[in-house]
Amino acid sequence: MRSSNSSVSKGHRGRPGYSREDIIRAAVREFTNHGYEATSMGRVAKNLGITKSALYHHVNSKEEILELSVKKALDALETVVERAVADESPARDRLRLLVRRSVKVLCDDPASVALLLRLRGNSEAELEAVARRRQLTRQTVAIIAQAQYEKSIRHDFNQVLLGRMVYGLVNSVADWYRVDGRFSPDEVAEAVEAMLFEGMSV
Amino acid sequence: MRSSNSSVSKGHRGRPGYSREDIIRAAVREFTNHGYEATSMGRVAKNLGITKSALYHHVNSKEEILELSVKKALDALETVVERAVADESPARDRLRLLVRRSVKVLCDDPASVALLLRLRGNSEAELEAVARRRQLTRQTVAIIAQAQYEKSIRHDFNQVLLGRMVYGLVNSVADWYRVDGRFSPDEVAEAVEAMLFEGMSV
Repeated sequence: MRSSNSSVSKGHRGRPGYSREDIIRAAVREFTNHGYEATSMGRVAKNLGITKSALYHHVNSKEEILELSVKKALDALETVVERAVADESPARDRLRLLVRRSVKVLCDDPASVALLLRLRGNSEAELEAVARRRQLTRQTVAIIAQAQYEKSIRHDFNQVLLGRMVYGLVNSVADWYRVDGRFSPDEVAEAVEAMLFEGMSV
Repeated sequence: MRSSNSSVSKGHRGRPGYSREDIIRAAVREFTNHGYEATSMGRVAKNLGITKSALYHHVNSKEEILELSVKKALDALETVVERAVADESPARDRLRLLVRRSVKVLCDDPASVALLLRLRGNSEAELEAVARRRQLTRQTVAIIAQAQYEKSIRHDFNQVLLGRMVYGLVNSVADWYRVDGRFSPDEVAEAVEAMLFEGMSV
């Protein structure tokens, strides 16, 4: 987690050695492991080996960490979906790219996406994030409906149900993917895309 | 949520009108909506329109509700997996049945399964549940490996990765399925099975 040049490049508010982004990542990992509600800022500081007041040099509150982290995940996912919406290729191709790129966003920062997926709308900021998340689903369901209309994907299931399953499988990666684990982002993205489009059967 | 004959059949400890099972279901729904940590027994009682002491006639603690609910989900899922293990048909057929039946268990009580999936091993009982959950995955991965060996499912992806995806899609149903919603359990089970084995492509 230590980034060697972070205190020079962006950690001007904090202790040398940890950038603001390092702090946020570490906190989000704690939220993932023990739950957002159950994680105190004291615990985050302790895990980083810094004092609570050093932690507050970097961030203003636990809520701020949640918001920044979720915003980052949403920004990245929205970029993916907007590209798929704007593209002019057949809907099925756009959907395949959307799936592949979304999985890569997820593998890059699974903890932030996991946090996003668990939001329940308990605050103004959470409600806004939930609304943005729903918009992603709506846009994706529209591409699915278009692909069904183009007869390039099965139409024996309702587009909303297909959308649930597409995001069900894509998002599930956030629950188990380890950035330093045995599977590369490309490998997982390829596998999820293959499962959703071709399935397991030979 | 009211079951008309529950006070006669099994509600001997409690207030007429609510069975122990009604109480547990209502509490688990609160856990799902607001998080286990954030839900107090006072809130559960208020939502049921009973006093806290009436609530404690039915159950001893919040932990007990969690344990009973998760145990019920695990018992049902284990029955499904054990049948698939014991069956003598080809591995791919057993895997299809396992998927279909697991989704039905999930649609029957999505909140309990969602609770099970979010356990982090914060207590002895949670650790035991997590161990049982892992055992389900291991047994399923063994069936997947067997189906790959029988060349009836694709073997270009590692069996562990396939296992992650099978449970990723199956379990995702717990996050969105509504018992009184627009999709029947059979419809969802069929769709999940079709996606995992044939995919969306036509």
